[in-house]
Amino acid sequence: MDNIPMIAAGAGLVGLVIAFMLYQQVNKVKIDNQKVAEITKEIQEGAMAFLVAEYKVLAIFVVVVGAALTQLNDMNTALAFFAGAFASVVAGFSGMRSATSANGRTTMAAKNDGKAGALAVSYNGGAVMGLSVGGLGLLGISLVAYWLGAGDANPDLSAAAGFGMGASSIALFARVGGGIYTKAADVGADLVGKVEAGIPEDDPRNPGVIADNVGDNVGDVAGMGADIFESFVGSIIAAMIIASSDGFGGAGFTGASDYIMMPIMLGLIGYVASIIGVFSMFVLKNGKDAAAALRNTTFIAAILFWAGGYFAINQNLIAVEIGVMHSVVLGSVVGIAIGLITEYYTGIEPVFGIKTKAIPHIGEMSKTGPATNAIAGLSVGMMSTFIPILLIAGGILGANYFGGDEYGLYCIAMAAMGMLATVGVTMTVDAYGPVADNAGGIAEMSGLGADVRAITDELDSIGNTTAAVGKGFAIGSAALTALALFAAYTAAITGDLDLTLTNPMVVIGLLIGGGLPFVVAAMTMTSVGKAAGEMVVEIRRQFKEIPGLLEGKEGVKPDSQLCVDISTKAALREMVGPGVVAVLAPVIVGMALGWDALGGLLAGSLVTGVLMALFMANAGGAWDNAKKAIEQGHIDGAKKGDAAHDAAVIGDTIGDPFKDTSGPSLNILIKLMSIVAVVLAGTGKLTQTGLL
Amino acid sequence: MDNIPMIAAGAGLVGLVIAFMLYQQVNKVKIDNQKVAEITKEIQEGAMAFLVAEYKVLAIFVVVVGAALTQLNDMNTALAFFAGAFASVVAGFSGMRSATSANGRTTMAAKNDGKAGALAVSYNGGAVMGLSVGGLGLLGISLVAYWLGAGDANPDLSAAAGFGMGASSIALFARVGGGIYTKAADVGADLVGKVEAGIPEDDPRNPGVIADNVGDNVGDVAGMGADIFESFVGSIIAAMIIASSDGFGGAGFTGASDYIMMPIMLGLIGYVASIIGVFSMFVLKNGKDAAAALRNTTFIAAILFWAGGYFAINQNLIAVEIGVMHSVVLGSVVGIAIGLITEYYTGIEPVFGIKTKAIPHIGEMSKTGPATNAIAGLSVGMMSTFIPILLIAGGILGANYFGGDEYGLYCIAMAAMGMLATVGVTMTVDAYGPVADNAGGIAEMSGLGADVRAITDELDSIGNTTAAVGKGFAIGSAALTALALFAAYTAAITGDLDLTLTNPMVVIGLLIGGGLPFVVAAMTMTSVGKAAGEMVVEIRRQFKEIPGLLEGKEGVKPDSQLCVDISTKAALREMVGPGVVAVLAPVIVGMALGWDALGGLLAGSLVTGVLMALFMANAGGAWDNAKKAIEQGHIDGAKKGDAAHDAAVIGDTIGDPFKDTSGPSLNILIKLMSIVAVVLAGTGKLTQTGLL
Repeated sequence: MDNIPMIAAGAGLVGLVIAFMLYQQVNKVKIDNQKVAEITKEIQEGAMAFLVAEYKVLAIFVVVVGAALTQLNDMNTALAFFAGAFASVVAGFSGMRSATSANGRTTMAAKNDGKAGALAVSYNGGAVMGLSVGGLGLLGISLVAYWLGAGDANPDLSAAAGFGMGASSIALFARVGGGIYTKAADVGADLVGKVEAGIPEDDPRNPGVIADNVGDNVGDVAGMGADIFESFVGSIIAAMIIASSDGFGGAGFTGASDYIMMPIMLGLIGYVASIIGVFSMFVLKNGKDAAAALRNTTFIAAILFWAGGYFAINQNLIAVEIGVMHSVVLGSVVGIAIGLITEYYTGIEPVFGIKTKAIPHIGEMSKTGPATNAIAGLSVGMMSTFIPILLIAGGILGANYFGGDEYGLYCIAMAAMGMLATVGVTMTVDAYGPVADNAGGIAEMSGLGADVRAITDELDSIGNTTAAVGKGFAIGSAALTALALFAAYTAAITGDLDLTLTNPMVVIGLLIGGGLPFVVAAMTMTSVGKAAGEMVVEIRRQFKEIPGLLEGKEGVKPDSQLCVDISTKAALREMVGPGVVAVLAPVIVGMALGWDALGGLLAGSLVTGVLMALFMANAGGAWDNAKKAIEQGHIDGAKKGDAAHDAAVIGDTIGDPFKDTSGPSLNILIKLMSIVAVVLAGTGKLTQTGLL
Repeated sequence: MDNIPMIAAGAGLVGLVIAFMLYQQVNKVKIDNQKVAEITKEIQEGAMAFLVAEYKVLAIFVVVVGAALTQLNDMNTALAFFAGAFASVVAGFSGMRSATSANGRTTMAAKNDGKAGALAVSYNGGAVMGLSVGGLGLLGISLVAYWLGAGDANPDLSAAAGFGMGASSIALFARVGGGIYTKAADVGADLVGKVEAGIPEDDPRNPGVIADNVGDNVGDVAGMGADIFESFVGSIIAAMIIASSDGFGGAGFTGASDYIMMPIMLGLIGYVASIIGVFSMFVLKNGKDAAAALRNTTFIAAILFWAGGYFAINQNLIAVEIGVMHSVVLGSVVGIAIGLITEYYTGIEPVFGIKTKAIPHIGEMSKTGPATNAIAGLSVGMMSTFIPILLIAGGILGANYFGGDEYGLYCIAMAAMGMLATVGVTMTVDAYGPVADNAGGIAEMSGLGADVRAITDELDSIGNTTAAVGKGFAIGSAALTALALFAAYTAAITGDLDLTLTNPMVVIGLLIGGGLPFVVAAMTMTSVGKAAGEMVVEIRRQFKEIPGLLEGKEGVKPDSQLCVDISTKAALREMVGPGVVAVLAPVIVGMALGWDALGGLLAGSLVTGVLMALFMANAGGAWDNAKKAIEQGHIDGAKKGDAAHDAAVIGDTIGDPFKDTSGPSLNILIKLMSIVAVVLAGTGKLTQTGLL
């Protein structure tokens, strides 16, 4: 059993090699169309330029925080922090490189090789991200565990939280920065292009279109990847810290080592299962139903993962209660159910034969104008939070039941693992979406034929569904991960901790923590509004000052680079505020008001963070699809171009920062604050009463 | 000291007599204008018809719940429940009767007697409501306290919670029903009248205008009154239950009786101070600054109240720690501060010389269309929650400090009393607002001259400020009252209660409770949307089918009654759902999951309820004033009638259900669920593990 970390690290390395081979596979696809080549290059350069600029800013942040950690703590946490940040950066970088490379190549494959070829290229493009995230996570956390002697009796694993904090910090900046980047470009390009100038989406005359496409990669690939990466390592770390805490398993319990190793074991099994799932696409891609092919790769991985986990316990490869695996399976089921509910509230098609009322309601309310459309979208978003919250509550109840008094909190962390262990394949499917989306955009911009568009449209529409499910999954796993980290926080504190709700300090923390997601949501929405405003001014200027641009005169091209620069600068400038709030809030509350208040803060931010994330993501998704439902003729008495459609376009624009900037940022906010608290608790340097 | 309840009951009675005399005073004002008389009659009849219809529905609810209580509990709680419901109904009815009578008479006074006269009539109209709410609350709770032997050693006061539950139930229906009524009419009338037909607000041709004016009374007078009534009695009950619980004041403490009596004593002092404050208007009305006159009546009452409280303790009229009064004063200060912050985020004018950035920001963002206006309003609303949350947290921290280990929770309830004891005068000022607003509407509809409009406009604009401050005050007091009731819940449970945040049941309750405000907000917004849609159809029909109506032909009148009926029916139909959710949620969670989960539910709903109430109220207020700021020329490059103004009108309409329906409903939701839990705890019939 002591070998588990090294085996897992080895599997992570092998997976990274496979990812590299898939990347080369993608790059082999020839781009034999001048325009496609040009646009691909522009998107890739824009995305890479942003990443490099972003990482420069983050380097400063990482050094400052790392230095602070060395002051506050022993060196180990600081080292782990650097490693976590570095691993997240490498994962984001490789995924982005591959996704931007696969964009145009998917377009070409659609033209030259048909649907199966295009599906394979886009899927492999996503798989590089998926396998990088899973592989780097597994490799990194395994090495940390080995280094800290996780297999020893009574190991001190508090420094492992540093790894999670590094990953979380990068994730928050990537999500917030990426979200601002993509929505500034999207909203700006739409407001001037679609609304004012009346030209279609992805029209090459629009100077903001390249920035918009870059943004899809920056936000949805790199941002989502960093988010999932930190959930994955966060849930492993939380479970390890809970299992290594005093009193775990009841008085006199000596079998903690196996429980400490179990999350790494599960990560290993899930990663191997993911690789098999990814490879199954080589066969599945030739089927008729591309959506089923994608879905089946994740099902194959999930079933293999479950089977592997039960096998390991039954064969005594690892000595843990069977309830642990029940919790893992329960976690997966909850994650899938949240995804389906998300689809119910935001999708146009029935889910398992149950027709959604949300989209028709918003469509209907669009007929009386933008105000009633907005009211309808907001209320759908708010209502959509409830069943997922009940599902999460049910997951906690079930995991706690499976774990009993001894392992209840541990099993909650295991439920999070159930959603995250097959990250290699679920992240692949998530990253596939923006690749397919961009492939369609590039086909449009390059003026390729209707048959190519038909293929990319189909792949794109499948991507929209997987994106909705993926978002629900991301929120569900973030909630359980944050809860597991909260449990790790309480386990890591050695002094007195009174987390009763009758303790006024806890209530104060609860209120302040509850308020922080509102603050971060407000900051990020304002940022998008400001950045989009700058974009609007620049696009208007180009349409006015570049002769022949709007008329589509041959050889006249917009200056896309200026728009890319605006998005880049705005994203870098605006991501700092929310990031600083997230890192400093737990430190300040902990220092000023003590551990009890900090515990309250984590619980409060967890509750409102999850609710606001669900509300904002689903309202945004529902507005988006209500607009599409009108365009596709699903709403009687409304059609593209009429007043109801105009109202729906406005709702869609309100929803842009909701679903792609603020909502996803909240996932990370709650995880980052939790892991900062765990790190603080590991230092043991704050006094209970606060005011150091 | 045993006499306190009877003295307080006597003061309550005297106050009610004074209220009746003020009502006669208002009614003495002659209406010597045919049109004003007609409209006043229509509004009064519409409002009374709604109240009667509403109370019929509520009668069924009260009987059913009362019967359930007699089954679950001893008879006393059920009797107290009926008394609380009855007192709330009487308060609402008298306030409404007086406010609707004062509407037109304020218009006439503005015409015949000038500003001072109009101010006096509208203020007295509000004072009937204020003194009724305070008087009935004091009378009712004093009689209940006397009846239950509150002055005896170790009294069982659990049945007193029934009184609060009766008041809360009526309040929820009144707020939700009233909120739906008023916004269905308002949104419907605006969408067809202002946006489609292009006629001004309050134009007599619009069939929805009477319903809109009725709605102002139904929502802002009766709804607000019931809300404040239940906060007032709820905070008194919570403090009494905390003081009567086992172990209060430390082991062997024998002085609990004085602490039980203290909230009634404070209610008494505050009520007497309020009456003096109200009477001071007879002198103050002749000053130049009407806004200052209004403000000063509340300041006079507050200072007298504080002085009286300190005097009572120093003179040993009642034996409680001086920290209790410090907490009372702190509570008042927090309430006022929240009101000022509300004004900062939603007002156009600087607050204490600090210029608001919120309104200019929304105004600026209106220039790029409704989407960016909506994003700006939403983010202002979200951001505006944070300082109030910090202030509430500060209030808890301070009260807990003043109370120490023995009286900490009690002092938190006392901080709520600090906001509520002078309810007689604060409610007067709150109710003044809609009276002045309607007086302006009636002047417009009756075609009275510009000089009359100038007076009513000035009084109305003062009313807008007092309304914003009043809303912040209502949310702040609701938060502290709910927290006090939560403490009363924990004190009322005699069995084991584990409210630690590491107890999964608590976390589950926290999540479910956190979700409920989102559900109720969604339900009420959807209701407004639906009802407004019905209103739109009817108004469009009348404009189309009644010849000469839209052209303003002499003698052609719209059929206002049909619109009144639509609002009435919609409100009655739609208020049932949220009401049932609020009453049943704590019962179901308590029965299925036990006391721990129910405690979590209360804490979770408190946190998100307060945040969502602040968010929605302030976003709505900010949108409203951003539109007004454009109309008044405060936003460079935007003016009435241009595209930016159109965008701002859309934002204002989104904000209507936010600020007047959903937001205020949440105040009551959290208080009602808390008091239901206190009643359940008093029965002691649920088992800890749940599943009765």
